[in-house]
Amino acid sequence: MKVRDHFLMKAWYVAALSSEVNATDLFHRKILGKSVMIYRLADGTAVAMHDRCPHRFAPLSQGRRIGDEVACPYHALRFNAGGKCTHNPHGTGHIPKAAQVDTFAIAERYGFLWIWMDEAEADLSLLPDYSPLDDGPDTGVGYTYMNLPVNYELIIDNVMDLSHIDHVHGEIITTRGKLSPQVPKVAETDRTVSARWEWSQKPAMMIFAPFLPKPEEEARQYFDITWSAPANIQLTVAATQEAEGFDNDINQYDLHTCTPADEFETHYFFATRRNHVEDDAEYNAQKIAGMHAAFEDEDGPLVQAVQAEMGDADFFSLNPVLMSNDVAPVKVRKLLARMIEDETSPSGGLAEAAE
Amino acid sequence: MKVRDHFLMKAWYVAALSSEVNATDLFHRKILGKSVMIYRLADGTAVAMHDRCPHRFAPLSQGRRIGDEVACPYHALRFNAGGKCTHNPHGTGHIPKAAQVDTFAIAERYGFLWIWMDEAEADLSLLPDYSPLDDGPDTGVGYTYMNLPVNYELIIDNVMDLSHIDHVHGEIITTRGKLSPQVPKVAETDRTVSARWEWSQKPAMMIFAPFLPKPEEEARQYFDITWSAPANIQLTVAATQEAEGFDNDINQYDLHTCTPADEFETHYFFATRRNHVEDDAEYNAQKIAGMHAAFEDEDGPLVQAVQAEMGDADFFSLNPVLMSNDVAPVKVRKLLARMIEDETSPSGGLAEAAE
Amino acid sequence: MKVRDHFLMKAWYVAALSSEVNATDLFHRKILGKSVMIYRLADGTAVAMHDRCPHRFAPLSQGRRIGDEVACPYHALRFNAGGKCTHNPHGTGHIPKAAQVDTFAIAERYGFLWIWMDEAEADLSLLPDYSPLDDGPDTGVGYTYMNLPVNYELIIDNVMDLSHIDHVHGEIITTRGKLSPQVPKVAETDRTVSARWEWSQKPAMMIFAPFLPKPEEEARQYFDITWSAPANIQLTVAATQEAEGFDNDINQYDLHTCTPADEFETHYFFATRRNHVEDDAEYNAQKIAGMHAAFEDEDGPLVQAVQAEMGDADFFSLNPVLMSNDVAPVKVRKLLARMIEDETSPSGGLAEAAE
Repeated sequence: MKVRDHFLMKAWYVAALSSEVNATDLFHRKILGKSVMIYRLADGTAVAMHDRCPHRFAPLSQGRRIGDEVACPYHALRFNAGGKCTHNPHGTGHIPKAAQVDTFAIAERYGFLWIWMDEAEADLSLLPDYSPLDDGPDTGVGYTYMNLPVNYELIIDNVMDLSHIDHVHGEIITTRGKLSPQVPKVAETDRTVSARWEWSQKPAMMIFAPFLPKPEEEARQYFDITWSAPANIQLTVAATQEAEGFDNDINQYDLHTCTPADEFETHYFFATRRNHVEDDAEYNAQKIAGMHAAFEDEDGPLVQAVQAEMGDADFFSLNPVLMSNDVAPVKVRKLLARMIEDETSPSGGLAEAAE
Repeated sequence: MKVRDHFLMKAWYVAALSSEVNATDLFHRKILGKSVMIYRLADGTAVAMHDRCPHRFAPLSQGRRIGDEVACPYHALRFNAGGKCTHNPHGTGHIPKAAQVDTFAIAERYGFLWIWMDEAEADLSLLPDYSPLDDGPDTGVGYTYMNLPVNYELIIDNVMDLSHIDHVHGEIITTRGKLSPQVPKVAETDRTVSARWEWSQKPAMMIFAPFLPKPEEEARQYFDITWSAPANIQLTVAATQEAEGFDNDINQYDLHTCTPADEFETHYFFATRRNHVEDDAEYNAQKIAGMHAAFEDEDGPLVQAVQAEMGDADFFSLNPVLMSNDVAPVKVRKLLARMIEDETSPSGGLAEAAE
Repeated sequence: MKVRDHFLMKAWYVAALSSEVNATDLFHRKILGKSVMIYRLADGTAVAMHDRCPHRFAPLSQGRRIGDEVACPYHALRFNAGGKCTHNPHGTGHIPKAAQVDTFAIAERYGFLWIWMDEAEADLSLLPDYSPLDDGPDTGVGYTYMNLPVNYELIIDNVMDLSHIDHVHGEIITTRGKLSPQVPKVAETDRTVSARWEWSQKPAMMIFAPFLPKPEEEARQYFDITWSAPANIQLTVAATQEAEGFDNDINQYDLHTCTPADEFETHYFFATRRNHVEDDAEYNAQKIAGMHAAFEDEDGPLVQAVQAEMGDADFFSLNPVLMSNDVAPVKVRKLLARMIEDETSPSGGLAEAAE
């Protein structure tokens, strides 16, 4: 069985970091197999449309801005932010009815541009709340972007089973073998899967230890992660040396989110907000660079090696040997598959959902 | 529907510039999906054959010339210009009947080597007359070759709708937006489609303006183009400042011709003969370099971007929005498709042709 | 018809030179379409297993050795040399029954690690005897490895028809056109095809001439080659200036053996033992470097050009014109095809074998 090339459509994906789309340029990215152009209107609002002129299929993002409109680079048909053709320099200037580019809703939240790729009306209630990323100074939050030639579900698997940190990552975020013996508590809702690990280690993760009262000593830690459809994982990690509770902990609140370019290429976005050293821009830059490197150098090569081994095969068709640490990622894979089937099956997928 | 991988077979394609095939070397080019070897006999005649030994399929063009014959680089079977095996160094030297390489007719005309790839006898009456390229000194005509990873019909589209010059090209050949409002006159025959634009601009195209009486002033111009099956476009462009007619114009007579390597790669040949500065070799070299650059830097990237968007889809299957400037290229696409169907349909395509 | 992507399974292939797998590292190679990990136990024994963790398909060869066991780089499942999971750091440490990696028998002989990829028990009686490679000092035998992006049968064709040496190779091993007129004696058994050429040339091949009594003079030479299924060719080549027989000849005993990575990529191994200058390490190194270069620079490019011409087509489906020099390679192709059909046909291929 081949890996699925359908994606959950009635959902928000991150199209770009807010900072990737500036005031003037036309931005291109391939999303769910489609070319997408994103740009900002004069008032700063970001808009998105199919990056393909309906005339002869040239990419509009290689064209020219004229105010809030865009002229195709090939024959200069002009389109407004609604994808409607507003100017045809050819012949009588008649504008064919079909000269219309598909547009996609964009919501700008939490430092990201979120895109809704389905034809049905965008449903903002389906965009999860990651407002803690906004709470605090700009120097206390970092963002990064990576592109990986792998199926996005392999990245979700990676993050949903944090026991891999024991084995894959170096000294900076090591969990010293403490996660693997844990069977994380896992909870599931209609569109989410959560897991929590709690443990002690000595010393704490190196990203936290220097900020604890006794950097060399044992600390209590937890990871809380929540996947929300289609491909968002909110992760909180904390450390404390108090006897109980995490009221005065050192922590960070992260978002990992994946957007398929197609079934074999993934845009991977990452944000982290911390409750310590919040006002140091240089520390902030180092922090996000370090986290970027951890993924690029440690998880990334492994996930790519797994992709190479799997080829175009579906994960379950290869009969993986699953263990206690796989509960959360497997629940995610199954829930996501069910949601996609619900969207694509003729009956609306009720039969499958009722299983 | 996928892009067509059949080509018009009973037709002449340019295999190479005359200058590409020298007196001694074996020349290789992939044409209509086939490896072709071209070389010149001692008397200068160019010959072509399948670049594949019938023994073990080594490319003959990597072999050795022996007079007017060619020895295979692998086991030294020798073939004459008619593709007949003339020497077998193995065993008794018996030459198997099947040891025969397919040959292709070559006609050398107008600075090009034209090839006929069909099994049926070559029909010279189907080779269009481009003799004006021969009329004048060598320093008044230029030739160039480009290879592009695109379907050849996208290049024909590009040239058959010259309104793109208004929007794509820079100052040297700009038509200052004057072409797009025109609805070109289009005419069609059994194997040709022609179009003509006539307009005024101020100043004239920069390639002509310096040779007009008043370089800064308004000039009348025209473009005449004729596509001839399968993929030749003859283009004449002129400028004058006389009150009427083009009797004493400044002009150039060009040929653009495309030869599919296969459905996703095209050999693009270009020739230009002008009626001014005909004796200046340096000007000639600059002229052809400039026209090469215009295509390579301006049309080329756009056509490649279009190809990337279209993937392997057929043009019409993507429902292009067509306009008045598309009349000529669409007529070409339809006529060419009909001619190819006529060749490939069992009934000889009479039914389709009768539509 | 497409080139076959089935391989003979009940057979020994060379997985690696003995020297490629050292005492400590985990070695990876793709064999018959499968990722394989090879390493040596503390006692030096080489073992092989599927290079894919049964948990989440990470390559074990990127993991860590723990004594004679290997821990997966991703979640640290540990496997012994028998492919059995011996340690699970997750949850209760329970080891799922299915946590088992497929292993492959390895036999270390004649300077090579031979692998048996079939599920059936390895049959050492099917490993040909190449013990002459072991007879003599280390400085009298050389080994090399090449990787070529071609189907392995094209390399077998190349070696089984040595007449190509007349035409392809340079002065060092040239046979001066003497092989092609020969019709080699060919013999066939259940799993082998042999051929012998005998001839005189002046001077002898350059690799032998300096060691003959009269280096400039005529010498008698022979080639003896025996292909053994699946892809081993033992080749002996000799020269003498005695009146008859080859009792005191100058010779070398070579093994050429191919292992398909898949149907379009081949591991090509080569060994040569000579009966002269046996104690000169520097000469030995030069000798193997020269033979490596001969293949890499002379046969290799040709075989790759043939592969490019053939694409994914089956050899016979292209109707090759076959000659007397093709008898041996054609017998090999047919016998190998019959053996593969015998393995894969439901009836055990008896019907075909009885033809």
